[in-house]
Amino acid sequence: MAEKNSDLKLLSAWYSPMATRAKIALNIKGLEYENIEEDLNSKSDLLLRSNPVHKKIPVLIHGDKPICESLIILQYIDEVWSNGPSILPRDAYDRAIATFWVSYIDEKLFVCTKSILEAGEDVEKKKPHFEQLEEEILVRLEEAFNKYSEGESFFGGNKIGLIDIMFGSFLPVLGLIEEINGKKVLVDDKFPGLVNWAANFTANSAVTGTLPEIDRLILFAKAQQQKWALAYKATSAN
Amino acid sequence: MAEKNSDLKLLSAWYSPMATRAKIALNIKGLEYENIEEDLNSKSDLLLRSNPVHKKIPVLIHGDKPICESLIILQYIDEVWSNGPSILPRDAYDRAIATFWVSYIDEKLFVCTKSILEAGEDVEKKKPHFEQLEEEILVRLEEAFNKYSEGESFFGGNKIGLIDIMFGSFLPVLGLIEEINGKKVLVDDKFPGLVNWAANFTANSAVTGTLPEIDRLILFAKAQQQKWALAYKATSAN
Repeated sequence: MAEKNSDLKLLSAWYSPMATRAKIALNIKGLEYENIEEDLNSKSDLLLRSNPVHKKIPVLIHGDKPICESLIILQYIDEVWSNGPSILPRDAYDRAIATFWVSYIDEKLFVCTKSILEAGEDVEKKKPHFEQLEEEILVRLEEAFNKYSEGESFFGGNKIGLIDIMFGSFLPVLGLIEEINGKKVLVDDKFPGLVNWAANFTANSAVTGTLPEIDRLILFAKAQQQKWALAYKATSAN
Repeated sequence: MAEKNSDLKLLSAWYSPMATRAKIALNIKGLEYENIEEDLNSKSDLLLRSNPVHKKIPVLIHGDKPICESLIILQYIDEVWSNGPSILPRDAYDRAIATFWVSYIDEKLFVCTKSILEAGEDVEKKKPHFEQLEEEILVRLEEAFNKYSEGESFFGGNKIGLIDIMFGSFLPVLGLIEEINGKKVLVDDKFPGLVNWAANFTANSAVTGTLPEIDRLILFAKAQQQKWALAYKATSAN
């Protein structure tokens, strides 16, 4: 049952993996919160005031305290509501390993998927990023899953934890990439561990309803691509 | 007095701000360690084995456990040797604020100073990065210092902490940039808080001997620039 907490607001955007992370963490702890959907083309005063440095979502506002950036939000939630199910591992070395993979996901997977999406229809431009995704990043993550899950459903063992949330929030982006390129990436014969993990992750009660629907994401991505194409045209106009 | 700990090895490079961070943290906790200087042109088997994903320094090896990446190393040291002086703030919100500024430093200051150094003699190429450094990044950090130090010497108050270490490790790089461009950046009339902080930081007993000397750094940077110039020539040869 959700703990009543009228003091918790989340500034987010429905399509953002970073915002999804915060939502899942709040669900794991059973915390009620007010979700405030931001229009990033016209940012609210609350967002500009709460994150004046980066002006980006997600921002968790706890009472009058804003907390920015998904990893920092997850750490904060885990520490403040420490009597709920834990998100980060308790052991210092296990925590070091988990944050190492989180930074791998945010450096490699985030940048790579963004490059694929921004390349739009340009097959040649997409090619090296697709190769990196299939031959390097997912291979590493499959290895990590097999090493750390120890036969259980999640990266952290038998329950959902930090790596699961940080990686799992990108599953809709992977789905989107598969859809618009007409090619399955997360396939069972190459990544059996991750395919199983993804099914368990999306079925988890803390995750249900937090992941954006692929169809809606496709429409959104197409509109974004048009914006990127226009911006590119504008900068290379003369 | 340093705690004997033959079980601690640090794979590092003398010029690396990231490695400097780990050294300062180990000093704060009074931990003895074996410093192993890596030649990044010919990486040791120990480095390749300890950080197979990124193959980068610093790596702290505790017993047989490798811990990679400076922030993760600092968090690990702070948690495992928790009875020494604390590096991260104890309060969850203060910790969220500190890690927010650490990520600002690593995203903005690191990328900006790297761009200035890589631009070499190209004044036009350097200009926007210099402007960003002087008009944005250091302005933000001066504001943050004045807000969080509360009249004390360090970002965290009266003793050296996470932001101090993460930012202070870049002081030699700023010194190098000032030297090769013949222009002071960290000047008293624009950044009085940071100028004072930098003096207190470099004089701190945990920091002494960890920062690379500017003269040696200049020679190193010049050699690197030649390498970058050659690499550029090679890639644009035809």
